[in-house]
Amino acid sequence: MAAPAVLERSRLLVQPAIAAAVDRLCVELRRPSRYHFGWTEADGSPSSAGSGKGLRPALAVLSAEAVGAPGATAVPGAVATELVHNFSLVHDDIIDGDTVRRHRATVWSAFGVEDAIISGDALHNLAYQLLLDEPTAERVSAATRLTAATAAMIAGQAADMAFDDVTGIDLEACLAMEADKTGALIGYSASVGAVLAGAAGIHVDALEAYGRELGLAFQAVDDVLGIWGDPAVTGKAAGNDLRERKKSMPVAIVLSGHDEAAEQLGDIYDLEGDLSDADVGRAAAIIEAAGGRDRTVAEARLHLDAALDSVADVGLVDTAVVDLVDLARFVAERDF
Amino acid sequence: MAAPAVLERSRLLVQPAIAAAVDRLCVELRRPSRYHFGWTEADGSPSSAGSGKGLRPALAVLSAEAVGAPGATAVPGAVATELVHNFSLVHDDIIDGDTVRRHRATVWSAFGVEDAIISGDALHNLAYQLLLDEPTAERVSAATRLTAATAAMIAGQAADMAFDDVTGIDLEACLAMEADKTGALIGYSASVGAVLAGAAGIHVDALEAYGRELGLAFQAVDDVLGIWGDPAVTGKAAGNDLRERKKSMPVAIVLSGHDEAAEQLGDIYDLEGDLSDADVGRAAAIIEAAGGRDRTVAEARLHLDAALDSVADVGLVDTAVVDLVDLARFVAERDF
Repeated sequence: MAAPAVLERSRLLVQPAIAAAVDRLCVELRRPSRYHFGWTEADGSPSSAGSGKGLRPALAVLSAEAVGAPGATAVPGAVATELVHNFSLVHDDIIDGDTVRRHRATVWSAFGVEDAIISGDALHNLAYQLLLDEPTAERVSAATRLTAATAAMIAGQAADMAFDDVTGIDLEACLAMEADKTGALIGYSASVGAVLAGAAGIHVDALEAYGRELGLAFQAVDDVLGIWGDPAVTGKAAGNDLRERKKSMPVAIVLSGHDEAAEQLGDIYDLEGDLSDADVGRAAAIIEAAGGRDRTVAEARLHLDAALDSVADVGLVDTAVVDLVDLARFVAERDF
Repeated sequence: MAAPAVLERSRLLVQPAIAAAVDRLCVELRRPSRYHFGWTEADGSPSSAGSGKGLRPALAVLSAEAVGAPGATAVPGAVATELVHNFSLVHDDIIDGDTVRRHRATVWSAFGVEDAIISGDALHNLAYQLLLDEPTAERVSAATRLTAATAAMIAGQAADMAFDDVTGIDLEACLAMEADKTGALIGYSASVGAVLAGAAGIHVDALEAYGRELGLAFQAVDDVLGIWGDPAVTGKAAGNDLRERKKSMPVAIVLSGHDEAAEQLGDIYDLEGDLSDADVGRAAAIIEAAGGRDRTVAEARLHLDAALDSVADVGLVDTAVVDLVDLARFVAERDF
């Protein structure tokens, strides 16, 4: 089955359960949450904005199928993952000052910082509530693993924020941060279906490793798109990551070169006040010329290969592995 | 044992475990967290500021002793409660715009809103991580109950925020909000030791009811102190709740009277811009003259009595019940 079909199939399976979970919130929390998921407009009227790619639910569903269980086994884990992922988006948008996500105003810019904080808190807590509603051994294991993945995600975001004040960020530091910030929860997604199916440790570990590596590939692609992506596709302003002076992979690669390109890029990041379109364009050109873009693309391919290796020949169900491979390629080769 | 001694004894038992839990966070998250708990200054140097009364840990410890278990049984539950309580304080201070707590700058005003958001998220998650580290049946039960108590707490905070835009708040609506915002987590604290000891449902329920009622009594006292408390004792500016136009119990009682006092108080709350000291003083005088203070004190006594009734004659350990009664009186009769 091709990747878009896998995403669509998982969405149909998981989306109603996410909606049911969010409906458990009181009205004050439900409104910004439903808006964030793209189901409603800020005034509560229906919206067809949509909820993003649905990569994590698809990985959860495939991870159940990869150990011979029905995809439906993964649903509580898929929902919990989406709740944690989306709580982090709502809070990160405040932290990063991002006003636009998925072509729409972010929750804080539509509802205010206060409502965005409390709605994110509610989604975070709901993830654990949902998993522990019926505390079977498998669900408890899924909840326990979620505490670790979420702790890593939060630590990664904190490290990312700290990068603003540090000059010596290289690719290694950047990858370590992104392994926590993005890789941990994608690794969780890609194994939680197997955990809920009570699968053997070797299979859970292989799927989690696949997800962690895919997460890094995904993040490398995201970092490229954050500079050179088409705003019509990414839903964010062109050169957004540069405008925010993020030390993403392409930037870290160039800055750690300690050469003329590093100096020029450092000078732009050190400018007072907001960066102009011309500054952003110049920074992008410096990074591209210094090989920051090519090396980030190469990094994406490296981690994609590692992801595919993780699920080869470990005794997982063949058809599901084919889907996992397709999905990984789809995610890590988009838009190049 | 007198209440201050019970608080001190529990603090000695629980505080090191809280510190050990917070030490699991990465340095970026540890610094604002340790500052918030009063262990360090903002620059990381040691502080003797202290961490508040420690009511919740003391309740947790007594709830274990009340079912015949050692107080130490309660420790993971006491720590989880403190982590959730303090995550909510860090986030609520941003939401309410409060710059001072326990005589010190709040986390967001010392470290910035961004660090306060992410540190709160980390403390929230750590509570579940800690309980699920060793997922025994009792700890899983404690974690499951924590999801419900925390969901109620968040819903209560959301309701409190929504009160700003609603005119028809009466005492009943106010109590319902405060039962969620404050009562649920104190009810959890006052029963989690019994849950971790594997106690019978009747004992857990009695202790939880005690805690919920004590929470309402505590909140009623807090609402009185929020208007008439001595800044040297409360650590907040005089008349703080009025300045922030909170619809706390004394205010809700007067506003729902639909008489001249209600109109005068409503007019002050409707003034444009910040309220002056004179406005705040006038509002306090109106509420006191209209009986808002006396009726809130009466409400505190009512819920204190209900709390004491909950733990009487249900077969709990007598000495622990004596301590629970002392502690409830200490909390609900402070500063009158």
